[in-house]
Order: sequence, then structure tokens, then C-alpha cells
Amino acid sequence: MHSFDTTAKGVYLITVTPFTDTGALDLASTDRMVDFSIERGVTGLTILGIMGEATKLTAEEARIFTERVVQRVAGRVPVVVGVSAPGFAAMGELAAAVMALGASGVMVAPASSVRTDDQIVGYFDMVNETLGSVPWCLQDHPVATGVQMSPTVILRILKSSPGCVMLKHEDWPGLAKLSTIRAAGAEKAARRVSILTGNGGGLFLPEELSRGADGAMTGFAWPEMMVDVVAAHARGDIERAHDLFDAYLPLARYEQQAGVGLAVRKHLLHQRGAIASPFVRNPGPRLSPQDVADIDRLVRRQDKRLRELG
Amino acid sequence: MHSFDTTAKGVYLITVTPFTDTGALDLASTDRMVDFSIERGVTGLTILGIMGEATKLTAEEARIFTERVVQRVAGRVPVVVGVSAPGFAAMGELAAAVMALGASGVMVAPASSVRTDDQIVGYFDMVNETLGSVPWCLQDHPVATGVQMSPTVILRILKSSPGCVMLKHEDWPGLAKLSTIRAAGAEKAARRVSILTGNGGGLFLPEELSRGADGAMTGFAWPEMMVDVVAAHARGDIERAHDLFDAYLPLARYEQQAGVGLAVRKHLLHQRGAIASPFVRNPGPRLSPQDVADIDRLVRRQDKRLRELG
Amino acid sequence: MHSFDTTAKGVYLITVTPFTDTGALDLASTDRMVDFSIERGVTGLTILGIMGEATKLTAEEARIFTERVVQRVAGRVPVVVGVSAPGFAAMGELAAAVMALGASGVMVAPASSVRTDDQIVGYFDMVNETLGSVPWCLQDHPVATGVQMSPTVILRILKSSPGCVMLKHEDWPGLAKLSTIRAAGAEKAARRVSILTGNGGGLFLPEELSRGADGAMTGFAWPEMMVDVVAAHARGDIERAHDLFDAYLPLARYEQQAGVGLAVRKHLLHQRGAIASPFVRNPGPRLSPQDVADIDRLVRRQDKRLRELG
Amino acid sequence: MHSFDTTAKGVYLITVTPFTDTGALDLASTDRMVDFSIERGVTGLTILGIMGEATKLTAEEARIFTERVVQRVAGRVPVVVGVSAPGFAAMGELAAAVMALGASGVMVAPASSVRTDDQIVGYFDMVNETLGSVPWCLQDHPVATGVQMSPTVILRILKSSPGCVMLKHEDWPGLAKLSTIRAAGAEKAARRVSILTGNGGGLFLPEELSRGADGAMTGFAWPEMMVDVVAAHARGDIERAHDLFDAYLPLARYEQQAGVGLAVRKHLLHQRGAIASPFVRNPGPRLSPQDVADIDRLVRRQDKRLRELG
Repeated sequence: MHSFDTTAKGVYLITVTPFTDTGALDLASTDRMVDFSIERGVTGLTILGIMGEATKLTAEEARIFTERVVQRVAGRVPVVVGVSAPGFAAMGELAAAVMALGASGVMVAPASSVRTDDQIVGYFDMVNETLGSVPWCLQDHPVATGVQMSPTVILRILKSSPGCVMLKHEDWPGLAKLSTIRAAGAEKAARRVSILTGNGGGLFLPEELSRGADGAMTGFAWPEMMVDVVAAHARGDIERAHDLFDAYLPLARYEQQAGVGLAVRKHLLHQRGAIASPFVRNPGPRLSPQDVADIDRLVRRQDKRLRELG
Repeated sequence: MHSFDTTAKGVYLITVTPFTDTGALDLASTDRMVDFSIERGVTGLTILGIMGEATKLTAEEARIFTERVVQRVAGRVPVVVGVSAPGFAAMGELAAAVMALGASGVMVAPASSVRTDDQIVGYFDMVNETLGSVPWCLQDHPVATGVQMSPTVILRILKSSPGCVMLKHEDWPGLAKLSTIRAAGAEKAARRVSILTGNGGGLFLPEELSRGADGAMTGFAWPEMMVDVVAAHARGDIERAHDLFDAYLPLARYEQQAGVGLAVRKHLLHQRGAIASPFVRNPGPRLSPQDVADIDRLVRRQDKRLRELG
Repeated sequence: MHSFDTTAKGVYLITVTPFTDTGALDLASTDRMVDFSIERGVTGLTILGIMGEATKLTAEEARIFTERVVQRVAGRVPVVVGVSAPGFAAMGELAAAVMALGASGVMVAPASSVRTDDQIVGYFDMVNETLGSVPWCLQDHPVATGVQMSPTVILRILKSSPGCVMLKHEDWPGLAKLSTIRAAGAEKAARRVSILTGNGGGLFLPEELSRGADGAMTGFAWPEMMVDVVAAHARGDIERAHDLFDAYLPLARYEQQAGVGLAVRKHLLHQRGAIASPFVRNPGPRLSPQDVADIDRLVRRQDKRLRELG
Repeated sequence: MHSFDTTAKGVYLITVTPFTDTGALDLASTDRMVDFSIERGVTGLTILGIMGEATKLTAEEARIFTERVVQRVAGRVPVVVGVSAPGFAAMGELAAAVMALGASGVMVAPASSVRTDDQIVGYFDMVNETLGSVPWCLQDHPVATGVQMSPTVILRILKSSPGCVMLKHEDWPGLAKLSTIRAAGAEKAARRVSILTGNGGGLFLPEELSRGADGAMTGFAWPEMMVDVVAAHARGDIERAHDLFDAYLPLARYEQQAGVGLAVRKHLLHQRGAIASPFVRNPGPRLSPQDVADIDRLVRRQDKRLRELG
């Protein structure tokens, strides 16, 4: 099995959390979604992120969901769990709990209160101390956190935090940043860690692969898009990677809308049979008839374009 | 006993959470701090706020601490617990847990992601639905949350949220806001709720009382300052209220410094015998020798000035 | 000629400001760029926006550039000038100056300090008073300003500001907002103004047109994309609108990257012969060889796809 | 005469800009205010800051006001002018203009868009290039700018920017920062520049002087408070410095309220005869009768306390 370590590559899918039409945790759909994702070729699953509605779950629900995912995955791919928390005590508790349930590692974004380079590095020194031997992924997502980490800062964190095995790169736009960090790794100025990208929900995936990314960590109702783009790129067929990417881009763009995007994704996963209900817990977006009409058109056009490409 | 309801007045003290010198929860000091506060005349206690290092406690520690405070208070004053959380599920869980332990109510600040008037009102509609019959205090603290609530919005929340019994007013500066909300209550344009102020840590207390505030909800190592100022004001001795306030102001100002302020407060509470150790958990400020020299001078001067006032 | 008023439609192009290779204002290229744009069918020009490097010009340069654009346009299309300023005195001065030079109107975004609904409406009451009879476009661009304007607030501004003739809609994502404002206009609950979209640089143009947008106000090195998409949509050929849009989307996406995007746009305009130099003034992005390789590939692929579409 | 250079000390007063009751620039009051300030012992004047309503002046008014201040000062003290601007072109223009009018130097705060250490240092490299040989003051004011500069970053700026002669320290709270920067100067790890403080409007002045500040740069309707506190401190009479400070603190605190503070200051300067009208231009705060009652009480109490102190 592929491991959650510095050699990780491919596609770590950010999963949704399935609910029934009345809003209860849907464990049968959890199983179905796990299988759906793995069958499409993902190399890892990341659960309880923002798009997994983590903050809308009770602690008990989060535990049950994590346990179910890990059981269903049954070692086929690593499972990474988001543990960003307002304090280190809660972060440590959550990390210990999910590791005990069989998770492969955790993911951490900086608290939005840190600003200067030293504050950011200091924050991750505390993360490192909190997580101990648990391997973790550093989430660089300024749009969500308000924290801007320069390449210099990321390299400092990699140096002081041996437990950090992966960078989830979603600074937007971040192509130059990605190149800088990769170059530092190549020149032995820093440890080489896995870099998976989530830039605008994968909207720069082909270019990021060319800059040295090892794959993607993001969500999309067609995980096979990312899997196939990464595969084409890996075998050197760059044009095919772009052809595939471009075919999915209009819908991916629509699904990545802030706010309503999660409702779009669950609507599509429901249509594709991966989950039994598109239910999103409050507070959450609802699709209007116009949204659904947009989506129907984009799906139809995507199908057509994929058939043309063969 | 004074109740946590729309008639609440006096001083609800924002308490610290006492630790031992090695960072463990200190339950003996918890008892001592409760008694220290009530003996100085506070009419309520508010625990697990920002200055209570809430985010540095595990869920289990928060439960134990809340239980101990409630037991020691033994009904002498209401106990209010901060339950602001990244999601409504966690907020509901926490509120149910603390009410089961004997708390009198909870306190909620808006999530920092809400911005427009409608978003803010919608957020508190969800709070209202989440908390059900639990009485709660609306915390208006833009410096911490980034959310600016106009008087119009606060009046809308009071209208749609019958469970809201108190406003913790700490918009800075907010004298005009306080006047506007009080005027609306007087003109029957809105329910009259209790308004306790925390403006810069009580740094505008005499002026706020003149505008119709019912008292203070904030922290200070000398809770008797607020108790005495409120009492003098209530009996119409405005000049005495100012005299007392002015005597404490230089030290209060020093203790209200962002960042290092919590270390100052615990240092002083330790000196006054209210807690056994000034320990602050990581990440937290540490006092330098220069800070301690500043504090020593300010305490000495404060003692002298209070003796002069008689 | 098409007028800058509530009936405006089509494409108002956000122009760059051309410099020579040594950074001087390039008036010959200014002429060339004006002609290039109008020949491709734009119905208006918007100058001195963020992408026009307005803040990097001296007051004298801004005057000379505006005068030159207006002269070269010679009444063929309206010219709108960005006049957002830290204060109303400067805004009024600038607006008076550009109108005296022959501009058709101005564009204003809210100061980033306003937050509540009442503050936003109050801000635009001041704008209205400052601009007097000058027609203006309201720029709704939360990513740049940090100010979130709900549909309710926008409708209040339209009511109190008769001089506002156009909404530049670039709240992202804003499809539901667009629908709400259009519905209010249809139901006579508000004046109907022109709505041009700039959402992520036009990345939702076909969907926005379906929601009632009158066209686009944004920048792209291929203004004919927006012109042709708007035209296809206007004649009811929605699929053709999408086909064209999708063909340009991969490059448009790349050009809309925050930060480096302006360098991409000037590079492409230079390649297309619209300006003599791709020079961007400091502080500004520079393209790396990898960026140029990305762009070359995307242009080649775009050309191929457009040929396929015919 | 005292020079605006790295040896500057004492009190640089942030002045208001006087208007007539109908809002016109009041040049007679400008003269009166200059004399009022210098007679009370200030060692410098800083004009066209936020509290000088700089953004509400036209460019022509700013020029006339600067010229008048410089003429009236007639070399008695240095005049520093705020030149923070959205772009370097405007900053350079403004700096050249005010130096030509006889200013001694300028003051610059970072643009609110810079975040990381490297971005901040890069920004001031551009400032340095823009200002050339003009001496300037670095304004560190995170509450206003959102930019947090660590001591490390400030020391980097001092190293790369020889034109920077002064730090206006108003990070709040910043006692530890002040100590760190002073220690670096003492250890020859950095150039020693003048440090004047504006922390919360001088609300930590005695403590800052103990940490090595050279004086204050802020505004207050009683500039003699800062002058006398600095003088008492300089001659080693620390207790007297505190006594004076404490006597003024209740009113200083009231005048430092965000928003309404400027109206309070102009009201008091008008009462003291320094300016002919308390007029504040739009958008600006207005005093309510309750505000005026608060102020009257605080002035009366301050007079009494000063008499007691002798």
C-alpha cells in the first residue's frame, strides 16, 4: 500500500460527509463513497476538512464517521484527518483519537491569528510538540486562513518539524512558490516532502504537475479527472493531461465556487450514485433551480466533450 | 439569589483558569479563586472565555473545571460559560454539557466569517435554534471577532432571539451604541435586556454606567474596583465612582494590554493570594523583569492613591 | 453611440496602462491599444483600475493618459475612469478632472474600512454627494475591498444614489446575488441599472448572462472572447456561447491569477501587437521562463481549439 | 534647533487640521495652533496624519496647509509630513512637494496589503528608493494598517534603509518590542534611531520612556502633558512623571477613543483657544450632549487633580 509519508503521490481526495435527507450521519453512504473514490483510483482520502462539514459534526459524530471510513477503507489507501483547532489541547486530543481509530496522519492549517514569519514558525513548533510522532500535512491555504507563508517560512517549518511529511499547497496563485520549494528540495537546502495541490480546487493541476507537484489533494465530484490527469502527466503525455483537464474545467470551475460549491458537489455525487442524499447541514448553501439548470448543462457538455476526446 | 436574566446587574467577573506551576488544572486554586471573587462582591462569574484560556483546555478539563466552579459557587451567584465554537454542533454539545453541570447560561460571539447585517442576524437565528431554552449572553466584541454589529442589528437579534437575556458590550468605543440600544429599550422599540460592559476591559466603566449599562462583565485582578464603582454610581455618587475608577486606571490599563495582559493578571492574582501559581499555558505570554518592575511600581502607586482617597 | 447609462450593455474592457521598456508612459501604444480594443468590438473602456496600475502613476501621468485615451477614442465608445480614493476630497477632484477631459463617467468601490450595512449605505451617500451629476458605476468586489454588500444593501444604494447607473458585479461567487438584484428590478422594487460582470475576470460569464447580466466589465488579452460570448448569448445561441467560452477558459483562468496575472496579460497583449512593451512598473510581477512556457502552451492549445470550433 | 534625525527626542505633536465652521481650511487657526503647540514645548510637529484628516483635503489644500505650517513654524522645530499613499508614484510626488515647501522629513506606514516578512522589507526597499535622500520616519501601527512587523523585520528595514531616522512605535502593546529594538541598538546589532511612541495615543508613555523611548509622537489636546512627563523622566523624577501622567490619563483615555476621538480633540483644542472651530469634515464623528457632559466632567476633574499635584 501507498504510505502517507514524504513519498506520497497521486490523488488524496477531500471527501464530503454524507447525511440522510433528514440530516443524520449516513454510514451506508459513507461506505459507498469510500468505495466510489477508491474505485476511481485515488491514492488517499482526507476527511473532516472544511468541505467535509467538520465543524457541523458533534465530537461523537466525528468519531463514528472516522471509524467507519477507516474500517471501510481497510488499508487500501491512507486516511488523513483534518485536526486544525482553536487550541493545541483540542488538536492533540483529536489527533490522538483519530490515530487510535486507525488514521494514517493528520492535516493542520495555521491559526488565523498568526501573522509574522516568527509567529508562524512558532505556531508550527507548537504543532510539532503537540503531535509528537504523528505524521502530518501542512495546509497552506491563505484564502481560508488569512495567513501568508512565504517559501522561506515553509522551508523553516520543514526544517524544524520532522513530523511534517506533506505540503498541501493551495496558496493562490502559487506556481512560483511551488517552484521555489521544489528547487530548495533539489538543492538539498531542505528536506523533500510530498507536495499535493489544492489550488482553487485543482484549477491549476497540469501546470502544478509541471512544477514538480506530486499530485492533488482536493475534492471534485469526478475524482477520476485528477487521477487521469496525474497519470497522463506521469507518463509524459502532457497534451493528453491538458485535454482531459480542459474537458472537466468548466464544471470544476462551477463546483469550486465559494459558498454554493459544496451543494454543487453533493448534488453531483448524489447524481453519480456515490451518496444517497445531497443534504448539506445548516448553515449551508442550497441550490436554486437556476443553479441546477447550470449544472445540468455543464454535465451534458462535459459528457459530450469527453466522448469527443475518447 | 441574583438571576442570569434580563434584570441582571452588578459585576460578572471573567475568571482565569488556574494551573499549577507544572501546568496541570489546579482545582484547589479554583475554589480559592471562586471564594476570592464572591467575597469581593461580584454578582456573577463568567468562565471559559478567551482570558480563561478555554482553547488550551481539553474537553475533559473544561468539563472538570466547570463542574468544580459550579460546585464551589453553590448557587451563590450565576455561572455563565463561553460556548463560542466553529460550528453549531459543537456549540450545542458544549451548551448542553455545561447546563447539565449546573451553569446558569452561556455566552456566544459571532463567527468571524459573518459580515453583512443579514448574515449576522442569520447566524444568531441559528444560535437561537441551537440553544433552545438555554439563556444566553450576546458578546459584541469586534476587536476579537472582526464582526461589526450596528445597533440596528443588535435590536434585530434581540427581537428574533428570545433566549438572549444579556448584551456583553465591548465594541470599542461604544458609548453612542450603548445610548442607542438603551433608548430603543426605553421607547419599547426593543426588549430591555441586561447590558454589562467589557469595553477595553472596563476602561470606560463610569461613562458606560451613565449611559445606562447595568454593570460590567470583564476581568481585573481587583474585582472590587468594578464592584465599588458600580455601587457608588448606583447610589448617585458619581464623583466617588470616578475617584475610585481613576485610582485603579493606571494598573487596569496595564493589565488590559493585548497579549501580555493575561500574564499580568495571573501574576497579580497570585500576589493577592487568589491562585497558587501565575502559570499561563502555551502559547502564552511571559513577563520580563521589566514588566514586573512596571507592575510593582503601579501596585505601589495604586495602594498609595487608594489610601489617600480613603 | 452607446451611452454610459442604465441601458449600457456589451463589453467594457478594463484596459492596461502601456509603458515603454524603460517604464515611461507609452502614448503611441495607448493609441494602438485603444484601436485594438475597439476593433474587437468592445462597447466601452474602463481605465485606471487596479489592472491599469493606477496607483503607480503620478497625478500628471494619470491626467495625460486619460486625455490621450479620450482623444483617441474620439467618441466611438464611452470611457469610464476609476476614482476610488482614500478620501472624498481626492475622489471629487479626480472625478471633476477626468470629466473635464471628456470621460463619460467614473467607477467607485467602497473604502475597505466600512463594514455594516448602514456604514456602506452611508459611504455611498457621501459618494453621491461628492460626485453630483457625474454618472458612476458601483464596483462590488469583496475580494479586493473586504467589503461584503448584500443584495439588500445594493438595492438601498440604487435607491438613494440616482447617479449610479451601473453595477460592476464581481462578488465571487455571485450568481444568486445577480438573480436577486435582477428580480428586484423586474418587480419594480428597484431601479433597473446596467449590470456588467467581472466575476473572477469573467470566469462565469455565460452563467451570468443567463441570470440577466448585460455583459462584462473586465480585462482579458482576447476581448473578442467576451464580445463573441455576449453576442452569441444575445442571439439565443447559448451552446455556441459556452463553446467559445470553454475554448478560452484555460488561458483566461491562467491570466486571472492574482499577482502574476497582470504580467501575463501584458505579455499576451504585447505578443498580439496591442502594446509595444510588456513592461509592468514596480512593485509588480515578473514572468519566469516556466510561466512563459505555460503561456505558450496555452496559447497554442487555444488556437487549435478555436480552429476546431470554426 | 533640534533636528529631525536619529538623535530626535521630546514630543513631536500630531496636529489637527483646523477648519472654519463652514468647513474651509482655516489658516489663521493654523498659525494659532502652531504657536499654541510650540509654546507648550513640543520639539516637532507632524502634520497630515490620520488625525490631521489628510484624506479629506484636496491636493491643493494639503499644499497650502503644509506651506502655512512651515512658514509659521519658521524653523523653530522640524515639521514632518505623512506621505503614506496607495502607490510609490504618489508617495514620491508628495514627498518631493512637501520637501520643496520646507518640511524636514516624511512619515510612511506600510501598505495594508503586505504580510510576510519579505514583503514588508521589500516594501520599504521601494520606499527607500522612492524617497532618495529624504529622511523619513517608519510608522509601525498595526491597528491601522493590519501589518505586523516583528522586531526582526524592523531591524532589517533599519539596515537596508539609511534614510530611516525614526521609528514611530505604536504597536499595541509593544513594550517588549521596544526593549528588543533598543537592545539591538545598544549591542551595535543595528543602527540606533530615534524612537518616539504613539502607543494608544501615548497611553503607555511612562513605561515606554523607561524602556528607552526618546519621547512621544502623538496627539492630545494637552501637549504639555507629554512634554512634562518626558522632562520629569529625563531628569530622573520617575514618580513625578507618573503623577502627571496619571492626572491626565482619564481624559487622554477618553480622547483616544477610535472614531469619536478626533471630535473630542478638536472640541478641547477649541475650548483651549488653539483653533477657532471644532469642525470635523465628513465623514467624521459628531459629539452628542452626553459626550460633551462626559468631557466637561473629565476636564473639571483633571484641573482639580493638577491643582492638587501642584
